[in-house]
Amino acid sequence: METTAFSHSPTVLLRVHKGFDLSQVHTGSTPGFTGDKDAGKELLDREDEQLTELQEKLFAQSRFGARDSVLLVLQAMDTGGKGGIVRHVIGAADPQGIHHKAFKAPTAEEQSKGFLWRIEKELPAPGIIGVFDRSHYEDVLVQRVRKLSPANEIEQRYSLIRDFEARVAAGGTRIIKVMLHISKDEQKDRLQERLDRPDKHWKYNPGDVDDRTFWDQYQQAYQIALERTSTDSAPWYVVPADKKWYARIAVQQLLIDVLEDINPQWPTADFDVAAEKKRLAES
Amino acid sequence: METTAFSHSPTVLLRVHKGFDLSQVHTGSTPGFTGDKDAGKELLDREDEQLTELQEKLFAQSRFGARDSVLLVLQAMDTGGKGGIVRHVIGAADPQGIHHKAFKAPTAEEQSKGFLWRIEKELPAPGIIGVFDRSHYEDVLVQRVRKLSPANEIEQRYSLIRDFEARVAAGGTRIIKVMLHISKDEQKDRLQERLDRPDKHWKYNPGDVDDRTFWDQYQQAYQIALERTSTDSAPWYVVPADKKWYARIAVQQLLIDVLEDINPQWPTADFDVAAEKKRLAES
Repeated sequence: METTAFSHSPTVLLRVHKGFDLSQVHTGSTPGFTGDKDAGKELLDREDEQLTELQEKLFAQSRFGARDSVLLVLQAMDTGGKGGIVRHVIGAADPQGIHHKAFKAPTAEEQSKGFLWRIEKELPAPGIIGVFDRSHYEDVLVQRVRKLSPANEIEQRYSLIRDFEARVAAGGTRIIKVMLHISKDEQKDRLQERLDRPDKHWKYNPGDVDDRTFWDQYQQAYQIALERTSTDSAPWYVVPADKKWYARIAVQQLLIDVLEDINPQWPTADFDVAAEKKRLAES
Repeated sequence: METTAFSHSPTVLLRVHKGFDLSQVHTGSTPGFTGDKDAGKELLDREDEQLTELQEKLFAQSRFGARDSVLLVLQAMDTGGKGGIVRHVIGAADPQGIHHKAFKAPTAEEQSKGFLWRIEKELPAPGIIGVFDRSHYEDVLVQRVRKLSPANEIEQRYSLIRDFEARVAAGGTRIIKVMLHISKDEQKDRLQERLDRPDKHWKYNPGDVDDRTFWDQYQQAYQIALERTSTDSAPWYVVPADKKWYARIAVQQLLIDVLEDINPQWPTADFDVAAEKKRLAES
């Protein structure tokens, strides 16, 4: 089989810049990739090793003082494919180097603190790739659409988020924020499948259908969040996600690009290798 | 290629019972498995899917109230292969359903609390497979060998551990405790490899050679811990680990056995499927 690669990196093609318009993104498109589903799956497998080696180096160098870490934030409408990214992209990496956190509706204790309190606690340590399944962006998405907080409080959150993320980035964490973007029709098909298959019933939540009546408001809330919080230190990427296989190779590439940019190195021994060989031989 | 399976389950063959003698275990043996390395790798791949499906069911049923979880405790002398188990056995599972925790030497805060304080905080939630790379057993292993706590305190810990684990098990967590058992010669070879390969230097710690002079005392400390804390609610398994491939298939099988015993089920819908299909169609 002929191998296909990205003609242009998703890091460039999918990035949200000033003037970005979410409504213009075709959810079924595959920017930068001309191959089909099989070619996509082949690429995913092929790049696993690259991702794994970069991750191991990132982890290794942290043991010798390097501060770099990565944070992947995943946001999407229900059925958008966050779980599939975790399983098929992150799943290839060494669990030792991954910190995965799924954020649910906040608990009473969490609600009593600032909305970033629970986020801060789950930030990745040096050497770790953190993966957030939902995040502090729920506080400007569902909270905005369903009016769960006063409007002026929600308005303040965008700048609080920018400041927070800038601080986290300055501490050595590379932040990649991904919106998996599906169409309303695609969501319907995926919810239908969950209802058709008894082994998928557990993933179905009647509230998901209620949320569909707010579809346009959610898209608007995403548009506002994207334009206000896509910064150099914490950029947003909108990944067309009607084709699950495309979303997976795109996110995989975003991760590989940022890791290559960190360019982690095997640490140099801080001990005398020859002397240790002698000690070992005598032990 | 002809497929080879276990003739008898590691859950039976490797279990530590009354009268167990660690010094009688051959670290290079492959109990219950007559195949070679290739056959072992083939089995590992083949069983991945089984482990993954059981894990997903465990996770799914927890969303509908089931309390079951699993805790895999990994202990070994340095280079024993804990990391390889995490990567090659646990790595096949969905990161969403795994909680991995590596315990290092305790911090000042941790030392000021009881030794089980930091363990309790990392116990797996319902539906999750927890993996401990080192554990509270360090408090009766290195602490005993290096005399880091008063002898009478260490003596008390065995019963504290038994009580703690019995409580955890009663709460719905199935505990599997694994000692990866290597020979002193095998450790030497593995440390040698870490010194020979610059990309492995980061895994080498001069203290590991110091610990080799305490090899017999460590074996004795393991013997004592194994005989005092292998219980019905939290059994120990001693896995011969000179052959990495054997240790991996053995631990994989221990996990599969306990998951099959839990026998997790896809949850039954707590909503009216027909009514939801109608609502969805109209949405």
